[in-house]
Amino acid sequence: MNTINIQEKFSKFSEHWSPKILGEVNDSYVKAVKFQGEFVWHHHDHEDEMFLVVRGRMRMKFRDHEELVGPGEFIIVPRGVEHMPVADLETEVLLFEAKSTLNTGNVTNERTQPQLEHI
Amino acid sequence: MNTINIQEKFSKFSEHWSPKILGEVNDSYVKAVKFQGEFVWHHHDHEDEMFLVVRGRMRMKFRDHEELVGPGEFIIVPRGVEHMPVADLETEVLLFEAKSTLNTGNVTNERTQPQLEHI
Repeated sequence: MNTINIQEKFSKFSEHWSPKILGEVNDSYVKAVKFQGEFVWHHHDHEDEMFLVVRGRMRMKFRDHEELVGPGEFIIVPRGVEHMPVADLETEVLLFEAKSTLNTGNVTNERTQPQLEHI
Repeated sequence: MNTINIQEKFSKFSEHWSPKILGEVNDSYVKAVKFQGEFVWHHHDHEDEMFLVVRGRMRMKFRDHEELVGPGEFIIVPRGVEHMPVADLETEVLLFEAKSTLNTGNVTNERTQPQLEHI
């Protein structure tokens, strides 16, 4: 039951596309992740995902359009929907998602992070 | 699958202690709420709650201490733990919590909000 400072947590790591666990709320984790460049097209069969931008700006690409998400904005990607986050510059994002969520969803590649660090 | 601007949502209402639903992620709601003054001592038997301050500053009182939570900070209150949020000035807070969560937990009084508006 301690206050968590989000910027202080982001200062603890520099890797991109490697979510860190900041806390748990019921069956969900709150995660911090830095995006830069393109991720990978994927979907999650059973999990919705929330992306809240705290610094920078990202584009969430869908097959039929894309959404810009800037600081103080969030987007919720429903389960089953193919998506790919893209960040032209480094972007800091809070994730709120089910504990079972794998970052690359239905895809396994070099970006897949099955074990996440708690920071 | 639209981008949600948090400040734009907070501009839509002025009541205190009346959470509004901004979105759903799996079994959780994302809510916006404005705090001012003291709430009520309560706990939730089965639900953890996350409070993320976006503007202002609050104190989360526990029976044995209190935590200051400012902009860009959050606190997670585990199920079963008695707490009372206090905000000396108006404070805007994002909540992440199970859909089943009642704002006053085990207490029912004039602050209880069984039906929440989606904005």
